[in-house]
Amino acid sequence: MLTLFHQPLCPQSRFVRIALGEYGVVPNLADERPWDRRQEFLVINPAGTTPVLVEDGRPPVAHPAMIAEYLDETRGSGLGEHRLLPQEMAARIEVRRLTMWFLEKFHTEVSGPLVLERVFKRHMTVKQGGGSPDIDAIRAALSNIRYHLAYIGWLVRTRDWLAGPRMTYADLAAAAHLSSVDYLGDVPWHEDESAKTWYARVKSRPSFRPLLVEMHAGIAPSKTYADLDF
Amino acid sequence: MLTLFHQPLCPQSRFVRIALGEYGVVPNLADERPWDRRQEFLVINPAGTTPVLVEDGRPPVAHPAMIAEYLDETRGSGLGEHRLLPQEMAARIEVRRLTMWFLEKFHTEVSGPLVLERVFKRHMTVKQGGGSPDIDAIRAALSNIRYHLAYIGWLVRTRDWLAGPRMTYADLAAAAHLSSVDYLGDVPWHEDESAKTWYARVKSRPSFRPLLVEMHAGIAPSKTYADLDF
Repeated sequence: MLTLFHQPLCPQSRFVRIALGEYGVVPNLADERPWDRRQEFLVINPAGTTPVLVEDGRPPVAHPAMIAEYLDETRGSGLGEHRLLPQEMAARIEVRRLTMWFLEKFHTEVSGPLVLERVFKRHMTVKQGGGSPDIDAIRAALSNIRYHLAYIGWLVRTRDWLAGPRMTYADLAAAAHLSSVDYLGDVPWHEDESAKTWYARVKSRPSFRPLLVEMHAGIAPSKTYADLDF
Repeated sequence: MLTLFHQPLCPQSRFVRIALGEYGVVPNLADERPWDRRQEFLVINPAGTTPVLVEDGRPPVAHPAMIAEYLDETRGSGLGEHRLLPQEMAARIEVRRLTMWFLEKFHTEVSGPLVLERVFKRHMTVKQGGGSPDIDAIRAALSNIRYHLAYIGWLVRTRDWLAGPRMTYADLAAAAHLSSVDYLGDVPWHEDESAKTWYARVKSRPSFRPLLVEMHAGIAPSKTYADLDF
């Protein structure tokens, strides 16, 4: 049995949910509010971050990039040539590079601040860092997203998928992070048609569907969030 | 041939240098000042971060955690039972968890801000973010390091090395990050004798030696930095 401790609009959690979907695995989902620093959760992951994947008989796996490695090592061969982390070394390097780009750089510059300022802060106490959103942080993220979207567009104009000829973890990481931002209506899709077309393809995956039908935190999703033909 | 683009006091670069030393590999070292955003370097690593490992015939490998995976996959078996990323799954999970703890959490909370404020900012132009150090950021990092040191001490009182019975990437990541901070004299070693004893063991590795004899950026290292019996 697999349990995923996640936070619904946390983009790192979404990446793992989509990946699990691609492996055909349906985990128990445990909603976790990392800002509460719940004692039992800190025992599972002392770093206090979501997501954390717990599989019976194994230590908990934290950090989205390490969960991706774990899933590939335990279930990757079952996907055959659709493996999300390719076997061939050059492809492997490129998939990991772009996966980290979104899990780290895009998260720091775009999805992390937007979700924190617009969603999480509403639920946090003042002591936890809650309060009114930092408008400057939002403005910076909205400016940063434009060059990331252009980068995605550039990549998929030269390749079928972000990291090469097949869909990989890189696509799932990028799409997961974009989906959190898209929920909030903050993706300027009109700026890059190639990026938009690529996202529509990832969004159409059955693995994505569960995320598109949820409503979170009393915030309605943007009009086109669940629309496969946005 | 291997080339490592690195920045001498960048703790992430140090982690890879020490790891390469453990594999018995001597790379070409190319000093890179990431804040210059040199065009040729951005072609190698669009994220613009150090370290980047370039091996002939392969795409450049960026991100210290992904370089660690790459080195294990290409050279790990040569280390036999001293493999830095163990083969057994539970050990693998724990090594990766702690490696990410230092590469990400310790870096964000301690080594990143200290090296930025005390060293890199001296070399940056105002436009690059240079200028006088942010005293609040330094104060926060000096406060944060205490609980990290206590965590290391707690771990090595229950195990021989950070992640288990053998030295792994977790030890190299922790020691590399601490070494940057130690160069600046900012590690309160007196607070945890177990952590200090553990660090003395890692620091005594031949892989560590090249780092201990260098002087950087016109800043003299702390008195005990190169001292194996500090």
